[in-house]
Amino acid sequence: MSDPIFKKIDVVGTSTNSFSEAAANAIAKAGETVRNISWFEVIEQRGSVMEGMVQQYQTTVRIGFRVE
Amino acid sequence: MSDPIFKKIDVVGTSTNSFSEAAANAIAKAGETVRNISWFEVIEQRGSVMEGMVQQYQTTVRIGFRVE
Amino acid sequence: MSDPIFKKIDVVGTSTNSFSEAAANAIAKAGETVRNISWFEVIEQRGSVMEGMVQQYQTTVRIGFRVE
Amino acid sequence: MSDPIFKKIDVVGTSTNSFSEAAANAIAKAGETVRNISWFEVIEQRGSVMEGMVQQYQTTVRIGFRVE
Amino acid sequence: MSDPIFKKIDVVGTSTNSFSEAAANAIAKAGETVRNISWFEVIEQRGSVMEGMVQQYQTTVRIGFRVE
Amino acid sequence: MSDPIFKKIDVVGTSTNSFSEAAANAIAKAGETVRNISWFEVIEQRGSVMEGMVQQYQTTVRIGFRVE
Amino acid sequence: MSDPIFKKIDVVGTSTNSFSEAAANAIAKAGETVRNISWFEVIEQRGSVMEGMVQQYQTTVRIGFRVE
Amino acid sequence: MSDPIFKKIDVVGTSTNSFSEAAANAIAKAGETVRNISWFEVIEQRGSVMEGMVQQYQTTVRIGFRVE
Amino acid sequence: MSDPIFKKIDVVGTSTNSFSEAAANAIAKAGETVRNISWFEVIEQRGSVMEGMVQQYQTTVRIGFRVE
Amino acid sequence: MSDPIFKKIDVVGTSTNSFSEAAANAIAKAGETVRNISWFEVIEQRGSVMEGMVQQYQTTVRIGFRVE
Amino acid sequence: MSDPIFKKIDVVGTSTNSFSEAAANAIAKAGETVRNISWFEVIEQRGSVMEGMVQQYQTTVRIGFRVE
Amino acid sequence: MSDPIFKKIDVVGTSTNSFSEAAANAIAKAGETVRNISWFEVIEQRGSVMEGMVQQYQTTVRIGFRVE
Repeated sequence: MSDPIFKKIDVVGTSTNSFSEAAANAIAKAGETVRNISWFEVIEQRGSVMEGMVQQYQTTVRIGFRVE
Repeated sequence: MSDPIFKKIDVVGTSTNSFSEAAANAIAKAGETVRNISWFEVIEQRGSVMEGMVQQYQTTVRIGFRVE
Repeated sequence: MSDPIFKKIDVVGTSTNSFSEAAANAIAKAGETVRNISWFEVIEQRGSVMEGMVQQYQTTVRIGFRVE
Repeated sequence: MSDPIFKKIDVVGTSTNSFSEAAANAIAKAGETVRNISWFEVIEQRGSVMEGMVQQYQTTVRIGFRVE
Repeated sequence: MSDPIFKKIDVVGTSTNSFSEAAANAIAKAGETVRNISWFEVIEQRGSVMEGMVQQYQTTVRIGFRVE
Repeated sequence: MSDPIFKKIDVVGTSTNSFSEAAANAIAKAGETVRNISWFEVIEQRGSVMEGMVQQYQTTVRIGFRVE
Repeated sequence: MSDPIFKKIDVVGTSTNSFSEAAANAIAKAGETVRNISWFEVIEQRGSVMEGMVQQYQTTVRIGFRVE
Repeated sequence: MSDPIFKKIDVVGTSTNSFSEAAANAIAKAGETVRNISWFEVIEQRGSVMEGMVQQYQTTVRIGFRVE
Repeated sequence: MSDPIFKKIDVVGTSTNSFSEAAANAIAKAGETVRNISWFEVIEQRGSVMEGMVQQYQTTVRIGFRVE
Repeated sequence: MSDPIFKKIDVVGTSTNSFSEAAANAIAKAGETVRNISWFEVIEQRGSVMEGMVQQYQTTVRIGFRVE
Repeated sequence: MSDPIFKKIDVVGTSTNSFSEAAANAIAKAGETVRNISWFEVIEQRGSVMEGMVQQYQTTVRIGFRVE
Repeated sequence: MSDPIFKKIDVVGTSTNSFSEAAANAIAKAGETVRNISWFEVIEQRGSVMEGMVQQYQTTVRIGFRVE
């Protein structure tokens, strides 16, 4: 059987600047230990608030990578 | 009964630049009248278009704050 | 019958910078051939990854325009 | 910051005639105390039944209005 | 154990006039054989088309009734 | 291969009277240019508000038609 | 054909104590008349309120049982 | 009132071969006792596993049939 | 117009014991300031964790009450 | 602006054999008139029934293709 | 880059008593091998039935923990 | 505490033949390294297209296995 197989894991990245950067941070962190990441899907976007201002953008990404 | 209680309200922020800034604007506005905001969840992202270009990013956030 | 009628189409924009720019790119492209676009809804946000870093942000927008 | 901000509230209107009238009743009631309502979204449609016949149509609308 | 118990069944009513009447027809039909119906929830609204015009409105309702 | 194939398109009809009429208007408009429409599914119901009263019912229908 | 077949029915149990007991009550009631129940899925949790206090927990369970 | 009325029931078919056959088995079983079945909708696809291999495909179908 | 109108608000109750008690706490708190509460719907169940054990159950309830 | 843009269209394929073949038929038909199709997503699986047996598998696919 | 990163994993806890205890059991088990768990989200509630009575409550929780 | 605990992981299987085989391939691959797999749930079905024909069926399965 040689059909490719992939796994997906959920990672929450955070950023003080934007949801896009939060997603990028999640990917960068996962990329340190997971090989062959090829795509991600945004599952959720949330954030924390401090004194009435956004403190942190939080993006949950579902990351897909090929299993060797 | 001393278990904390929170309320959630839906606010739509807008921005000419990005969905993240639209969310931040919604939080900032809510923060003028609501105390103890601690988090938000993105519920919807939309936008208006003028002459074939994005005119306004609109982010609906559900804002959570502790009730005293 | 003079009640206005609108159609919706799904377009996926991409960007190397952000989900917001990816959405704007989708709108700009659709605006080249479709007239009277008035709004869009974000349906999905995904991305591609290369060597452990985000390579491309992908935003699927549902674009609404009036039918003349 | 001058980007417009909107709030959304959920109201359940009822009617003995139709879901559309139930929605209209919800809007009319909200309009008595809330200014600048500009749109609504149907969230849920239910009804009560008495002796095997529809007694009441119930439409939950999410009402959007601009915050001044 | 005397806590009340309810059952739910899905019925599709149809009408040539409106979604509300289609729902009412579903309830009326169910009421012929099921006792103690107390509420319904709209699950789906569809319709059939003939020669470019709506021919039939179809409303799927989930009907709740008390089990004696 | 003779298995029938269908396409679906999203159209938003509007009406000052009801969601059902808004759906009918969407179908009627689509029927002017699309042949073989056989069914529709309600995807979304919204509306616009003017001076605290419903101004326009908006029904998004997904229209299915056979491809010849 | 000997592959097993199952049916699912929706039952709403109620309890003055908890959602878990409400689910158990729904199962117990269904078990009086349905044989071979093997699993259930929680579909919805609601409740009624009297004088500002929870009066009744309501759990809708989808009950699966083998058809002989 | 002569508008047709339909009911829907949920049945889980199983198969050792495929999800499609599991659906067909569910329909065939329902057809033994229910008349006038005209359509079905796939609600869920699951399966059981034995020693690291798929043992059984399970397809939940919602079956629609006209009530006479 | 005398058809009854209801509003819904989202409240998050918490408890160190159970989701049911968390919901009850949310209702009890809302009941201090809101009159005519008649039902609630569970929207979300979450929790916080401390040193590998559940510290707090959190239930978000959507509370419905009649507007006078 | 050279970021790639894609469009998505919804097509319903049918087959007397399986959901997979129904999807393949939808793609094959779309491929006759649309260039650069690169992926599809399954949106819905339904079927028609005749005399208590599956008559037709129906798979709705959302087809993505690059816009040149 | 010092923005915190979290991972999420899905765990199904079981209990003979309640959904809340099932969730607590899932957290307790995960806490044996995963450090820095800070929150969980309830994804699904199901159960098994034996002789017409609930045998086991099953709660699927999505567990979030900080990646160091 | 002896109540059983399960974990779930998401795996994407692929096949040139069918969605069912793609699911089976995902399970077979997971079974090489994970013990005690007992069930799976289909989360998503997609595919890739080459020259207007389906090239690869992709089935995302959520796999449940007991933790010892």
